Amino acid sequence: MAPHSEADVSADLDNMSISAFGKARSTVVGKPLSDEEVRKMTEYFHATLYLCLGMIYLKENPLLREPLNLAHFKRRLLGHWGSDAGQSFTYIHMNRLIKKYDLDAIFISGPGHGAPAVLSNSYLEGVYSEVYPDKSEDVVGMKRFFKQFSFPGGIGSHATPETPGSLHEGGELGYSISHAFGAVFDHPDLIALTMVGDGESETGPLATSWHSTKFLNPITDGAVLPVLHLNGYKINNPTVLARVSHKELEALFVGYGWTPYFVEGSDIPTMHQAMASTMEKCITEIREYQKKARDSGKAFRPRWPMIVLRTPKGWTGPRKLNGHYLEGFWRSHQVPITNVLTDKTAMKQLEDWMHSYAPEKIFNENGALIPELKELAPKGIRRMSANPVANGGILRRKLHLPDFREYAAEVRKSGVTKVGSMALFAEFLRDVVKDNPNHFRVFGPDETESNKLSAIYQAGKKVWMGDYFDEDADGGNLAFEGRVMEMLSEHTVEGWLEGYILSGRHGLLNSYEPFIHIIDSMVNQHCKWLEKCLEVEWRVKVASLNILLTATVWRQDHNGFTHQDPGFLDVVCNKSPDVVRIYLPPDANCLLSTMNHCLRSANYVNVIVADKQDHLQFLNMEQAIEHCTKGAGIWDWASNDQGQEPDLVMASCGDVSTHESLAATALLRKHLPDLKIRFVNVVDLFKLIPEREHTHGLSDHEYRALFTENKPVIFNFHSYPWLVHRLTYKRTGQNNLHVRGYKEKGNIDTPLELAIRNGTDRFTLAIDAIDRLPVLGNKGAAARESLLNEQITAKNYAYHEGMDPEDLTNWSWPY
Amino acid sequence: MAPHSEADVSADLDNMSISAFGKARSTVVGKPLSDEEVRKMTEYFHATLYLCLGMIYLKENPLLREPLNLAHFKRRLLGHWGSDAGQSFTYIHMNRLIKKYDLDAIFISGPGHGAPAVLSNSYLEGVYSEVYPDKSEDVVGMKRFFKQFSFPGGIGSHATPETPGSLHEGGELGYSISHAFGAVFDHPDLIALTMVGDGESETGPLATSWHSTKFLNPITDGAVLPVLHLNGYKINNPTVLARVSHKELEALFVGYGWTPYFVEGSDIPTMHQAMASTMEKCITEIREYQKKARDSGKAFRPRWPMIVLRTPKGWTGPRKLNGHYLEGFWRSHQVPITNVLTDKTAMKQLEDWMHSYAPEKIFNENGALIPELKELAPKGIRRMSANPVANGGILRRKLHLPDFREYAAEVRKSGVTKVGSMALFAEFLRDVVKDNPNHFRVFGPDETESNKLSAIYQAGKKVWMGDYFDEDADGGNLAFEGRVMEMLSEHTVEGWLEGYILSGRHGLLNSYEPFIHIIDSMVNQHCKWLEKCLEVEWRVKVASLNILLTATVWRQDHNGFTHQDPGFLDVVCNKSPDVVRIYLPPDANCLLSTMNHCLRSANYVNVIVADKQDHLQFLNMEQAIEHCTKGAGIWDWASNDQGQEPDLVMASCGDVSTHESLAATALLRKHLPDLKIRFVNVVDLFKLIPEREHTHGLSDHEYRALFTENKPVIFNFHSYPWLVHRLTYKRTGQNNLHVRGYKEKGNIDTPLELAIRNGTDRFTLAIDAIDRLPVLGNKGAAARESLLNEQITAKNYAYHEGMDPEDLTNWSWPY
Repeated sequence: MAPHSEADVSADLDNMSISAFGKARSTVVGKPLSDEEVRKMTEYFHATLYLCLGMIYLKENPLLREPLNLAHFKRRLLGHWGSDAGQSFTYIHMNRLIKKYDLDAIFISGPGHGAPAVLSNSYLEGVYSEVYPDKSEDVVGMKRFFKQFSFPGGIGSHATPETPGSLHEGGELGYSISHAFGAVFDHPDLIALTMVGDGESETGPLATSWHSTKFLNPITDGAVLPVLHLNGYKINNPTVLARVSHKELEALFVGYGWTPYFVEGSDIPTMHQAMASTMEKCITEIREYQKKARDSGKAFRPRWPMIVLRTPKGWTGPRKLNGHYLEGFWRSHQVPITNVLTDKTAMKQLEDWMHSYAPEKIFNENGALIPELKELAPKGIRRMSANPVANGGILRRKLHLPDFREYAAEVRKSGVTKVGSMALFAEFLRDVVKDNPNHFRVFGPDETESNKLSAIYQAGKKVWMGDYFDEDADGGNLAFEGRVMEMLSEHTVEGWLEGYILSGRHGLLNSYEPFIHIIDSMVNQHCKWLEKCLEVEWRVKVASLNILLTATVWRQDHNGFTHQDPGFLDVVCNKSPDVVRIYLPPDANCLLSTMNHCLRSANYVNVIVADKQDHLQFLNMEQAIEHCTKGAGIWDWASNDQGQEPDLVMASCGDVSTHESLAATALLRKHLPDLKIRFVNVVDLFKLIPEREHTHGLSDHEYRALFTENKPVIFNFHSYPWLVHRLTYKRTGQNNLHVRGYKEKGNIDTPLELAIRNGTDRFTLAIDAIDRLPVLGNKGAAARESLLNEQITAKNYAYHEGMDPEDLTNWSWPY
Repeated sequence: MAPHSEADVSADLDNMSISAFGKARSTVVGKPLSDEEVRKMTEYFHATLYLCLGMIYLKENPLLREPLNLAHFKRRLLGHWGSDAGQSFTYIHMNRLIKKYDLDAIFISGPGHGAPAVLSNSYLEGVYSEVYPDKSEDVVGMKRFFKQFSFPGGIGSHATPETPGSLHEGGELGYSISHAFGAVFDHPDLIALTMVGDGESETGPLATSWHSTKFLNPITDGAVLPVLHLNGYKINNPTVLARVSHKELEALFVGYGWTPYFVEGSDIPTMHQAMASTMEKCITEIREYQKKARDSGKAFRPRWPMIVLRTPKGWTGPRKLNGHYLEGFWRSHQVPITNVLTDKTAMKQLEDWMHSYAPEKIFNENGALIPELKELAPKGIRRMSANPVANGGILRRKLHLPDFREYAAEVRKSGVTKVGSMALFAEFLRDVVKDNPNHFRVFGPDETESNKLSAIYQAGKKVWMGDYFDEDADGGNLAFEGRVMEMLSEHTVEGWLEGYILSGRHGLLNSYEPFIHIIDSMVNQHCKWLEKCLEVEWRVKVASLNILLTATVWRQDHNGFTHQDPGFLDVVCNKSPDVVRIYLPPDANCLLSTMNHCLRSANYVNVIVADKQDHLQFLNMEQAIEHCTKGAGIWDWASNDQGQEPDLVMASCGDVSTHESLAATALLRKHLPDLKIRFVNVVDLFKLIPEREHTHGLSDHEYRALFTENKPVIFNFHSYPWLVHRLTYKRTGQNNLHVRGYKEKGNIDTPLELAIRNGTDRFTLAIDAIDRLPVLGNKGAAARESLLNEQITAKNYAYHEGMDPEDLTNWSWPY
């Protein structure tokens, strides 16, 4: 394959070379632009590229009005050039169509490292200076604009939260398409123009997110126009999709359900014509599909258009430098000429290159873009970097929430009746869905029904734009228009939810607890985005990202060891205390109260852990509200230390853990009736950490009032036990804290057997307590012996019968 | 789309319905089987399905020689039926070709929940009874075989480590294809027959792993034959790929670079013919491609064959049950008839269904498979469940390791010269690559060069089977045959490495530290696999999974906040202490010593964290070996408490952290020369945890000997500081432990500024020490004041110049 072949504009895809160089070759042929338009667009394009280089190199002399010298350069050069030109080119062509059709559009930059492309366009369309007045449209402002880029105290080299118009940073690759879909769901007029890097396209999350079209309704949702940017190289390697045949490339996107249109080449005038006609074709198609569906009221899945843009990496830069390829090779990925500070020839090369964009022609005396070019940008909020969707908090409306108290489980006596927390919560959630038909969705990877949330299908079915079969009528709960989004890709559903929230709406993700680790990294990145937004004045808070984890570690009876991992909490605990919240409601009413709180909150990642099986209920609704409001408290009804200092604190966090901890308390009270036991339950995990480290943290005084200063505390925790130690290591009395939790021991176990393996069963907990109370003497020893025997009997029963003894599974609080 | 259309065997793809029912339709047309063969294969197929149902339901009366009654049933029914038939069908057809062509093959079960399919085939081919003699091929053995399945003390419902022939559990979905490729790299005669669930196919990791063909060399590697199993449904939803048009489906796999062959239908006799001819076509093509490449010595990338097998979910079960769809719908996912214990009619339905497979005909008097069917299975290690590749430890050869001492950095004086640890290590690694040309590979997501490991390309280039351009000759380091595997998918490269190791070879993954979180869940699953293997007697240990993390949190100068996350260590720390090891070598010689150790080890996940920038060197090779062998120790040369109890312990773990901690020590000694300071460095993180919790843990006595019992310890840690507290909360003196580390605060920062934000810079550390030594009085206060001023000056310099002051970056140990 010759990389330099020059073909005329042509629609003959099969014979196309896969070179990025030469005159434009494109699927759509046409010359929609006048020569004058081509000239202006080229100058505008050059203006953005000039700014990109300025950002990477300069802190003084922004318009090269003096000959360049060392003092004009930043002393440390940082930034990425590789994808800037392709991204800017695309942005500019969208501007033309926004103006022509009055489009409502946002720009999502997948290869986030090309931030200069986005920043330069925002600056040229005036938004940057409106948002940051010191970066004004003049020489001084441009100088500041250059210097701050990748500079201490300045801004990063991705489309960070500081970037107007960005709702996708792109620091970690792979989520541009799922974010874009999330943003256009329920925004029927919005078009998300989405650059996908060909590096990014190799990631798993991106590779499957192309299937999002099977979940997009052309009547109620907007559209995503992806531009796969084949610039050919990653950091140091060619990209896979840039090195397969045209036939395979086209087939791949047809297979994903899209109509790919190709625009390939490096010759600027012909590329402008090709891109203009192709992008217009795509926009027109999108609008036609939408019109057809909306006029007829019949939704369908079109093969939506997309663009494959093949341009050289580092496009418009020097083709070779010192005998090595630069443009069209991976060497143009970052700072394109690296030795300008030490080599005068190199500095001159850069200077000539920057002059080739003719800054003196495109910027006026003051340093502002000349009016005839300025005119090319849209106006007001039609400018992509000013679209309020990308500062979604502005658009966020309060959720209509029914009174959660009305869904309460009746609890006349604590610890006696059993209810499925999830099934009960589902009724509340169903009505949240019903009352918020346009700005609330539930997401999950094919587990919503398994997680006992299927009641919500009564209010909103599962969106499904794939083909239908007869069987679907038999309880399939599928619909073109729905509120529940299920695809077996945690990455995709999480990406959709993030995009949905960041563009001003509300949602909830439900997932099996173990597999939420699949999106550890995505949640990390979302936390970082939220955290950074707090420092950006003009960013308005968005709805919280609510992650409801169920099918928890303690009830993986038939799934075994692979499905046992409650460690997502550790990942979340590492993020900024300003943005993370973790709740482990012990029963159904607490779950209702907690979820009501989370759905009202903003700018957090709320993680809620609750099992889906039937469990004992402990608190009536009034008690639950009080308990959840406190976040941690003494359960008087389960304690017998009334008004006194206890001998022992039994504590728990998590529903199954609370159940066993209470059973252990009952065993202790049966065997050792004189023992004064206090029972403490924690709902809000961050209550454990000192208040100076997290706003939810208890003061030391409050902590002592619950856990005492010097009494043994037997703490049964839902997750890995050391997380409690990590949260409490600064607390007085922490030496007396004995925490039990999951210790990575499991198999195909009954609930009891799994608890015994990990020391979280009632017998072990009671024995733990006795072992820490030597004062009990012989009485304690006798009780210990008896508890051990009970444990062995129960375990043997399970091994023989394949299930736990009924007197354990049907156990209830006896007092 | 009518789900019931019945077409004849036909190659007319375009007009195919997407129903899974009816007579076979297939791309390859033929009738290679005699009627007798069809009969036998059907009976064998029925035998496996009979066993599948037996596993799910029965603990007594395995051959239904008495009428079924309640006592015969397990009291708790667990297991999955949905994909069993399709998987078993595929397995049986491979058996035919293994026999015919003497193939070396393994079976990888992507939809792991269909373990009964794998287990039943292993049992019928005799392997299961050889491995587990109590599960003998007779009535008693079959009874035990049934009962143990999904039963306490028994085996799980995935292809767990207990499963002969399995190297892929499938508990978490998405990795079957990448594991398969990993297994066939450098195994030129091996064919990995890989079932991919259509649920699994929606995951991101699976979606991109199809591109693995761009990295498979037909001369030196074996082949993967994927069978995409379109059984149409996940837990409660249709699958995406089962609900798109034939055209899209075919295009998708052509686009991915495969040649898809379709086999679709439910009619058993015609399906046998279709599958037999199709699979034979695929095997023949694979062998032809390999022969062509091997005969000519010219590697190329064929469009490898794959099979799309569309059969009904729950195939061969009742089509409807109580008016609801079962076969061909998601209701057949798990236990197919759920109410057999409570409803006599249901029990009778099951009994009739099981009888329909005619157990009395296919099993003899003793309960063994009748000889004419037994004959259908291959013999010896040709049986897929007996293939030693799937118990890779058997095949593992020791690595040839050059003497790492020969690569030492010269260190005449500690803390003076600078070396890039990674670049130095790369020379050692290059020779490991060179000396182990067939059983060692290096994996990474496009970061090997950026991580300064490019020296290895001298010994083994990057495997690239995509197209080549002229530019590649300019330092591209690409080759058809190579040792380095780079694709921008952490999931895929990790999956390849896991497959490579599990099939008996060695390897190393290098990655940017922050983005290793992308594969948290994969590493979790691999740890669980290793842990469980320790309990399986016949499993031989495999090489360790070595994960080298660089581009660490402290040097993300141009990448900023999104690239700062050292929390992978927390995830790893939650896994079983039997399988995880974490090392943070402080300099290049320690890195060499550590890597030498890790490459020799077996059955661990070794995580090694070291930065790639130039850093001060502290230990010569002899010292490094001693220090790394101890794992944690006092650095006498940096201490001035010789032979005495110190006033203060300065401790560090991690290279950048050690650098700042030493600088802080020097500042303290300058300002407060009378202070007796001990300097402690930790390489092996698990040294911190008590020995009873991890075999690497220091005894309490050893711990005290380093950290004292009651002196302040200022511990500068590479990662989140609370991890150290989580490891040491049981230690005496932990109240005096003050840990600094990354606290999730960052931006585009110079190294110093980032350290100051997080309190890990030399000034803060020295001030921390002073604040914990009130005895210093006025002298301390004066030193504190002066340190604060130095800090501010340095910070201001960075803000102004964009880089840290030279006297800090070029700082060296002054004593």
